[in-house]
Amino acid sequence: MAKLDEGTAPAGAGRSENSARDVLLQSASDLMIELGTPEVSLHAIARRAGVTAPLVKYYFGSKEGLLVALVERDTARSLAQLDGLNAMPIEPLAKLKIHITGIVRTYSRYPYLVGLLNHLLRETQGEASERIKASFVTPLIEAQRRIIEEGVAAGQFRAIDPDQLYFIVVGACQYLFSSRVAFAQIMDGKLADDAFARDFPNTVLDVILNGLRA
Amino acid sequence: MAKLDEGTAPAGAGRSENSARDVLLQSASDLMIELGTPEVSLHAIARRAGVTAPLVKYYFGSKEGLLVALVERDTARSLAQLDGLNAMPIEPLAKLKIHITGIVRTYSRYPYLVGLLNHLLRETQGEASERIKASFVTPLIEAQRRIIEEGVAAGQFRAIDPDQLYFIVVGACQYLFSSRVAFAQIMDGKLADDAFARDFPNTVLDVILNGLRA
Repeated sequence: MAKLDEGTAPAGAGRSENSARDVLLQSASDLMIELGTPEVSLHAIARRAGVTAPLVKYYFGSKEGLLVALVERDTARSLAQLDGLNAMPIEPLAKLKIHITGIVRTYSRYPYLVGLLNHLLRETQGEASERIKASFVTPLIEAQRRIIEEGVAAGQFRAIDPDQLYFIVVGACQYLFSSRVAFAQIMDGKLADDAFARDFPNTVLDVILNGLRA
Repeated sequence: MAKLDEGTAPAGAGRSENSARDVLLQSASDLMIELGTPEVSLHAIARRAGVTAPLVKYYFGSKEGLLVALVERDTARSLAQLDGLNAMPIEPLAKLKIHITGIVRTYSRYPYLVGLLNHLLRETQGEASERIKASFVTPLIEAQRRIIEEGVAAGQFRAIDPDQLYFIVVGACQYLFSSRVAFAQIMDGKLADDAFARDFPNTVLDVILNGLRA
């Protein structure tokens, strides 16, 4: 568990603002994973990090500011990979495979991300919502659309609406992870088994790639 | 909008407890659809129905009681169809088609259902959670497992873990609907277009059935 008042540096002595922000983001992330929902209070996040709620506001401006920063932290790696993927001289089927593997990995690490994105898109006005759309949601939709259109043009995929497919792919990749806490006592506790989550990406790839094949 | 104080019967004159319960459930459902989330307060539900929060507690015992009743209302039809489907003398591929169409229809009508089920499974202890599991989640998992196992045995489907497939199928069917409010301004507002939702079930069937074919 991340705590601001732990670690080797004495409290208030030389710890940079950046690392305090990182610890707060990690506390929010840990709490959301543990509770199985992004609906956590600013007070609970502060308590987890061993600080007061006003200090969280000092670093992030508001709870919304912290949530936007968390989405940006959690999606940074996927977005960098998406740019790399786009430039790769490989065929559409291989691109889609890498793309889907990346989506599963992102949601398995940050199972609260779907709920958090929907919350921010729904509840925030203006800048925060626009930032989430422009920095993550729209690039993901467009990257996937490009891959599907290339694959249809190359005769590898059957003709399919890329926007409808977006919801099918992301839904198929994320539902297991966003339901893991709720389903803990279901299917004989199989979801707590690491092998279940480890094998899952291959099953998703198997169903979706076969499902799209021309 | 459903309101307890509207309609032909004068307030307090002969309106049965059943219809008052129905109006409250419909108010909760309307509100969750409008806001795009099952996270609504008891007060907001009461206000929507034109009554006080204590009256809601009188009918359902607690907010949790109302939420469980709402899940039971929303899933009753699917469960009846699931029983009928199990008894039908048709081949597994045809069964899976009917089954998936039913899942899409349920989540398109009640887009808050995934969030509501997860909330109740996560947050409620004992009876409520057990009731949701026994009355809806477990029968759905088992019905789907039976269809997949029949299909694999008949050589129609490739061998696949039915429990992993459960999350792929339900995730693929529901994500569009549970994200509709959040995605209102994304994809040029395409999600508000009725044609998009109307064509969606065929796209899901197309991808999943092709994906499973032996």
